[in-house]
Amino acid sequence: MDVIYPRGILGQLVKEISKFPGVGLRSAERIAYSIILSGPSRINEFSALLNKAKSALSRCKLCGDISEGEICQICRDEKRDRTKICVVREPLAILSIERSGEYRGLYHSLDGLISPLDGIKPEDLRIGELMKRIDDNIEEVIIALDPSVEGDATSMYLADLIKKRDVMVTRLAYGLPVGSDIEYADATTIRRALQGRQEL
Amino acid sequence: MDVIYPRGILGQLVKEISKFPGVGLRSAERIAYSIILSGPSRINEFSALLNKAKSALSRCKLCGDISEGEICQICRDEKRDRTKICVVREPLAILSIERSGEYRGLYHSLDGLISPLDGIKPEDLRIGELMKRIDDNIEEVIIALDPSVEGDATSMYLADLIKKRDVMVTRLAYGLPVGSDIEYADATTIRRALQGRQEL
Repeated sequence: MDVIYPRGILGQLVKEISKFPGVGLRSAERIAYSIILSGPSRINEFSALLNKAKSALSRCKLCGDISEGEICQICRDEKRDRTKICVVREPLAILSIERSGEYRGLYHSLDGLISPLDGIKPEDLRIGELMKRIDDNIEEVIIALDPSVEGDATSMYLADLIKKRDVMVTRLAYGLPVGSDIEYADATTIRRALQGRQEL
Repeated sequence: MDVIYPRGILGQLVKEISKFPGVGLRSAERIAYSIILSGPSRINEFSALLNKAKSALSRCKLCGDISEGEICQICRDEKRDRTKICVVREPLAILSIERSGEYRGLYHSLDGLISPLDGIKPEDLRIGELMKRIDDNIEEVIIALDPSVEGDATSMYLADLIKKRDVMVTRLAYGLPVGSDIEYADATTIRRALQGRQEL
């Protein structure tokens, strides 16, 4: 049978919403229906907020995070440790690391990972910008990229480049997630946890 | 430690998005970041689509579904069985029932369920509108409300009201979801499945 529903403008809206990360088709339908049913004033408010966000938010000229103003809050903050830069794949990772409360240095988003298969080369990433920032009294670069083939390759590439400048390069420890059961950990995680074992 | 992130306009956007059904805070963050990072032209397009949806879509004057135009596609369709009305809690349920391909009659959204605890009384729902439609040659009303305390109470209330008009009232069968394992079914579902057992 033909699925006649939802088509037209409602169908378009569902399709657009389903492109959001982590939103499947069924969730997109629920969201689209709830937006439309909540009425014109709610749609107006949301649309106004989107437009406000569009004009007020841009990328920080230094770290690449989403920022109100040319330079973000963290890059402007004189109380932060300005000798450390933590390199992340994308701005959302900054949020996660900030939440840990463990790090008080600066950040730098690469906006991607080196991935020859997807045609992403080092020059497509914000690596040149990173190197310029490193020359400005940075003592340690902490690489916090995903534990994946691309993440590891990008980490190695960066480490080679940065070490030439006599700057310490570290990366996040890989191992068992805290609170997890060891029997549910995958083989690669356990391998990494063993390789990174520390003396007690 | 203070969570400084995300605040300001980005924080507002995350908060608004987290109000969408089924979207938690972390998903809202991912969605908000992806919207902002996708750039002004994508935001423009999405915002334009929202505004188009706002002006083009309204509630069908008959069934209450979301509709382009005063009367929706299903209510206008002369090929549908106009002697049957399927009563649902909300328009999204119409989508699910249409997908089953099993039903070719009309629909009616109550826009809620009777719930004394939440102060929702019969007169708060689209019951008056339903009764008017039933007087127009309807032979069967299929009640397709949630299998919950409120759903059952509303079904009973409607059945009493409709039977007085000499119209057949049926409701969806409750039982085991197709493809499920019986050992995972909850006690209430099994109870309903037993009560609704049919001779083979």
